[in-house]
Amino acid sequence: MQPYFHRVQYYETDKMGIVHHSNYIRWMEEARVDFLAQIGWNFEKLEAQGVASPVLAVRCSYKRPARFPEQIRIAVVLKDYHGVRVTIGYRMENADGMLVCEGETDHCFVDGAGQPVRLRRELPDFDAALRALLASD
Amino acid sequence: MQPYFHRVQYYETDKMGIVHHSNYIRWMEEARVDFLAQIGWNFEKLEAQGVASPVLAVRCSYKRPARFPEQIRIAVVLKDYHGVRVTIGYRMENADGMLVCEGETDHCFVDGAGQPVRLRRELPDFDAALRALLASD
Amino acid sequence: MQPYFHRVQYYETDKMGIVHHSNYIRWMEEARVDFLAQIGWNFEKLEAQGVASPVLAVRCSYKRPARFPEQIRIAVVLKDYHGVRVTIGYRMENADGMLVCEGETDHCFVDGAGQPVRLRRELPDFDAALRALLASD
Amino acid sequence: MQPYFHRVQYYETDKMGIVHHSNYIRWMEEARVDFLAQIGWNFEKLEAQGVASPVLAVRCSYKRPARFPEQIRIAVVLKDYHGVRVTIGYRMENADGMLVCEGETDHCFVDGAGQPVRLRRELPDFDAALRALLASD
Repeated sequence: MQPYFHRVQYYETDKMGIVHHSNYIRWMEEARVDFLAQIGWNFEKLEAQGVASPVLAVRCSYKRPARFPEQIRIAVVLKDYHGVRVTIGYRMENADGMLVCEGETDHCFVDGAGQPVRLRRELPDFDAALRALLASD
Repeated sequence: MQPYFHRVQYYETDKMGIVHHSNYIRWMEEARVDFLAQIGWNFEKLEAQGVASPVLAVRCSYKRPARFPEQIRIAVVLKDYHGVRVTIGYRMENADGMLVCEGETDHCFVDGAGQPVRLRRELPDFDAALRALLASD
Repeated sequence: MQPYFHRVQYYETDKMGIVHHSNYIRWMEEARVDFLAQIGWNFEKLEAQGVASPVLAVRCSYKRPARFPEQIRIAVVLKDYHGVRVTIGYRMENADGMLVCEGETDHCFVDGAGQPVRLRRELPDFDAALRALLASD
Repeated sequence: MQPYFHRVQYYETDKMGIVHHSNYIRWMEEARVDFLAQIGWNFEKLEAQGVASPVLAVRCSYKRPARFPEQIRIAVVLKDYHGVRVTIGYRMENADGMLVCEGETDHCFVDGAGQPVRLRRELPDFDAALRALLASD
């Protein structure tokens, strides 16, 4: 799996001169979209199946501020998956390899009506891809 | 018409220590939503009629930076309306009455399929409200 | 302590038609600023003392989406404080009293040079205010 | 000059299902930072000279919505420069080469105290680079 890179933007800074803490939550989303594309399930493909994966929870520990115009390396891992919920982990480092932050997001899968989708039954290929990924870690 | 007030948020600042210029565009939207509600056409009512008013253009001249945690007073006026397009003007002042910025947005009206809506025929009450407002200025 | 109210803005929505999950992190900041002002320690006062309180961690569980243009009620509580770190809790409800999300942020206190500040010694009044608050819950 | 590419992010969409209009203002900034780096004046270099270039005005005409996860090509040109102010133009196209929006920003140059800087006298190399660029168009 290739890491995702985010270039810090000026508009992401705040008056402390560093990146505002809310932006790291957005970078997790960027990296997650890229991660799903890498395992063959990009957003359009999931959307075409009528499946969305809302965020149930987010956790982030800030270790060292990111600054404009640094490039941040984001490594994404599948941390947990049991057929209904998935937990994805993120580790962000700056160009010096220093840890910037660590985070996790929890997701479920729902159909167009907002009803839970059991991936094993309704998207068995996606289910298999996630299980293979979990086993390989 | 009552002015709209926006309290500057910390997350709206940038590393220059002032509000990032993109946020004033968002405040125009806040003030516009409030303005439409004041003339009896809040967002839900327009939406219930199946009408959206996308932004065609935006212009903003920045005069003096806004800072956290100032309260900004936004006066909204209808600048132009000829049945198809509308131009709305915004004047933002800080608590000392100093001009912060002036801006304008142009909008059209479209139905759910993205087709232009002629307000005079399809939403005559809204059309009349806009004409009355223009005449009163 | 008075709850804080946030009016959902159009620009806070995403293509799912609901508020994007990153915005709740920003609303926690809004509510926290208001909370500190209510206990007599607004941002300017802390800043005048040369003290900043960076976010060390954030956690948020999303229960029910907020939608434009709802008003969200945010109750803030001091959850933990031992002289160096503080944990603040947030409970957001919509106008029907339904739980929208619950979150927490952890903070430390630093001086202008980024060095940790021991509140009991350097800002005893603020330390006392926090201890009183913790005891009263 | 190489165009700048921006990948549309999910968090940049709004409930109309398209990119919120405020984000194009931010993309102009991204493209401008890249443009200045390409002509040898990246942000750090200007900052090291104690020079900032605040935005005086922004204008944007929206032609066709950008959608997640499109890649947008942004061509930047120097439109005007007379020693004190600069006007930069932006043309954004989607992957099909369709025009998404056109915009302009006006900037001045100020020192650390916020006082105007005359580039010809104080940053003659930057002044020359801008003049050469204007002449070449």
